[in-house]
Amino acid sequence: MKKLINDPEQVVVEQLEGMALAYPDLIKVHYEPNFVYRADAPVDGKVAVISGGGSGHEPMHGGLVGVGMLDAACPGAVFTSPTPDQMLEAAKATDSGAGVLYIVKNYTGDVMNFEMAADMARAEGIDVLNILIDDDVAVKDSLYTAGRRGVGTTVLAEKIVGAAAERGYDLEALADLCRRVNINGRSMGMALTPCTVPTAGEPTFELEEDEMEIGIGIHGEPGRKRIELEPVDEITEMLATSIIEDEAYTRTVREWDMEKEEWVEIELVDPPFEEGDKVLAFVNSMGGTPDIELPIVYRKLHEICEAHGLEIVRNLMGRYITSLEMEGVSITLLKMDDEMIELWDEPVKTSGLRWKM
Amino acid sequence: MKKLINDPEQVVVEQLEGMALAYPDLIKVHYEPNFVYRADAPVDGKVAVISGGGSGHEPMHGGLVGVGMLDAACPGAVFTSPTPDQMLEAAKATDSGAGVLYIVKNYTGDVMNFEMAADMARAEGIDVLNILIDDDVAVKDSLYTAGRRGVGTTVLAEKIVGAAAERGYDLEALADLCRRVNINGRSMGMALTPCTVPTAGEPTFELEEDEMEIGIGIHGEPGRKRIELEPVDEITEMLATSIIEDEAYTRTVREWDMEKEEWVEIELVDPPFEEGDKVLAFVNSMGGTPDIELPIVYRKLHEICEAHGLEIVRNLMGRYITSLEMEGVSITLLKMDDEMIELWDEPVKTSGLRWKM
Repeated sequence: MKKLINDPEQVVVEQLEGMALAYPDLIKVHYEPNFVYRADAPVDGKVAVISGGGSGHEPMHGGLVGVGMLDAACPGAVFTSPTPDQMLEAAKATDSGAGVLYIVKNYTGDVMNFEMAADMARAEGIDVLNILIDDDVAVKDSLYTAGRRGVGTTVLAEKIVGAAAERGYDLEALADLCRRVNINGRSMGMALTPCTVPTAGEPTFELEEDEMEIGIGIHGEPGRKRIELEPVDEITEMLATSIIEDEAYTRTVREWDMEKEEWVEIELVDPPFEEGDKVLAFVNSMGGTPDIELPIVYRKLHEICEAHGLEIVRNLMGRYITSLEMEGVSITLLKMDDEMIELWDEPVKTSGLRWKM
Repeated sequence: MKKLINDPEQVVVEQLEGMALAYPDLIKVHYEPNFVYRADAPVDGKVAVISGGGSGHEPMHGGLVGVGMLDAACPGAVFTSPTPDQMLEAAKATDSGAGVLYIVKNYTGDVMNFEMAADMARAEGIDVLNILIDDDVAVKDSLYTAGRRGVGTTVLAEKIVGAAAERGYDLEALADLCRRVNINGRSMGMALTPCTVPTAGEPTFELEEDEMEIGIGIHGEPGRKRIELEPVDEITEMLATSIIEDEAYTRTVREWDMEKEEWVEIELVDPPFEEGDKVLAFVNSMGGTPDIELPIVYRKLHEICEAHGLEIVRNLMGRYITSLEMEGVSITLLKMDDEMIELWDEPVKTSGLRWKM
C-alpha cells in the first residue's frame, strides 16, 4: 500500500488536524467525537445544515463546510458511517435555535445513525429534520443500501440548501428544498481502478488491466456490470443514457413529521427527465482520474444532453465526491428550477468549493 | 493503459473542446494553433499574461485562464513544449496594445520556443517580456533543463502577476513582480507512482511497491534519490527541509532588455529563507493522490515552518500543477511581502482557482 500517511489508524484525525491548521478562518474541528464545523458557528437565526458519512470521499463533507454550504460535517472512519454522538454534538455546536437539517446519504448505517442522532437532539430540545439523498440509478439495492445509494446529488444539495439556509429559509422550507433537489437529481459512476482503505491495506476489489466496472458505488461496491474497457465516449454514453432514460422512481422513505412528532413513511417519486428540462451537469472524478480526462467526458455529455433536448444551464467539473485514489468518473444530472439556479449562484466559501467570497 | 480517453492522439484537442463547452463565460479556445484565452480578450489597456507548456499538468495552465490570472495558455502535447506559433497567436489574440508577459517554466524547449515567439511578436509590433520560473531545489540540471526546473511557484506567480495585471501594472512592473515571485519561491516534489503519457501507453518510469522517488520532476524526470517508502511526516520533512535550508542560489538567465532592444544575460539570486519570513505554503497533489492525504502533509509542514520561524500567512492545497495520474506531492514555499499578499487576495475566476467572483 502506497499512501502519504503515517499510521493507518490515524489518517482521519491527522487529516482533521491538517484541515484545522490550513483553514482556521473557515472551520473549527472538534475531536472525540470528531466533527468539522463553521468557524463562526452557531450563526444567529440560521438553520444549521449538517451532513456526514465515511471518510475517503474528500472534499465531501469536511471540505464543504463554510459560509453558504454546510455548518458541520461528521467524518466516520474511511468508508464507515459516523456515530450518532458525532452527529448530536455537531448539532449542539451549530444550532442557533432555528433547528438542524441532516442531509443523509442513503447507506444503511448512515441512515440509522442520523435517525438516532435526530431523536437524541430532539430530546435535548433541538428541532431536527433528516432528508435522504438516494440518487444513484445504477443499482436498486446494494452491499450497504436498501434502495438507491446516495452519491453526486449530495454535493449539489449541500450547495443549494446551504445557500438557502444562508438566506434565512426555515427548517421545513429547507427540508422541502432538499427533498426537491434529491428527487430531481440522478447519478451513475464507473471505475477503471479500485482503491485501498488504509486500515485494510489491500484494494477493495480487483479489476483486470482491460476491465472496468460500470455503476460502481463510492466505496467500490459492485455496480451493474464489469466489462472490457471502452473509449470514453462509449462510457459517457452508458452513464448518461442510464441517467436520462431512467423512468419515474418510486419508493418510501422515513422522515420526521413535526406535527405528529413521529417518524412517518412517505412516498417519493423521482420524475423522469423530459425534453426542455434545464439541468446542472456534474462530471466528478472518483479521485485518481487526472483533470485532463474530465473535459473529454463533459464534451460527450454535452452532446448527449443536447440530443435529448436537455439544456445544461450550470455545470460542475472536478473532484467533489471521491473514493480515495480510485480512477473513474461519475455523472450527475440535476433538473434545475429558477430557485435552484439562483441558489446555486449564491456565494460559497469552503476549502472544496468557493466563489464570490 | 487505463484512461478515460478516446484516441491517444486526440486527448489534448478533445480536452480543449470540453473546456470550451464547459466554460464559455470564462474562456475561448483557438485551434491550430491551439491556445485557450479569456472570453473577453483583449482587455482594454491591460497587459496580457500568457503561459504555456506541455499538457498533463492540469489545471495548469488552461484551467488558470480567466479574470485575475492568465489571459492565455498554450498547451503542447502531453509533456511536450508548445510551439512558437501557438505563443505568437495567443499574444496577438490577447494583446490590447499594453504588451504581453510570457511566464515560462524553465525547460529547454519551453524557454527556446517562448524566446522565438517573443521575437516574432516584437517583429509584429507587440511589446513582450519573458520571465523564467526556476524554483525546483531538487536538482541543478535535469533531463529537460539547464539549471533548476520550473514547478509550483509558476501557479503562484500566475495568480499574483495576474492580479497585478488586472490592477493596471505596466509590462515592466509586471516583469519585475514576476521575477520577484520567482526568486522568492522554492519547491520540491516526490512520487509514489509513475504516470503514463497517452501516446506512449507505458509508465514513464517504474517504482517498486516499497519505493518512492524524492525530488521528482513534473514529467517523471528522476529526482534526488529513490528510497524506501517512509511515513508522510518523514517525507514532508525531507521536502520542507530541502526547501527551507536551500542556500542563496545564483544563476544567469536571459531576459529581453527593452532599452537595448536585445536579449541580455542577467544574474539572479534567490535569497534563502530567514527566521521571521512570511510565507505562502502550497501543498500540491501530483494528480492521483487523494484529497484526504494532503492535509496530513500540511499538518507536518506547518510544524516544520513554525520550528524554523517561518510564519504561514497564506496557503494553497489541492491539485494545481500535476503529472497526469501520478501519486505524490510537492511543496512550495513562497516568501511573501505585503504587496504579494494583497495581490494574492484579489478576486480570481478561472475553472481551476476561483474566489470573490
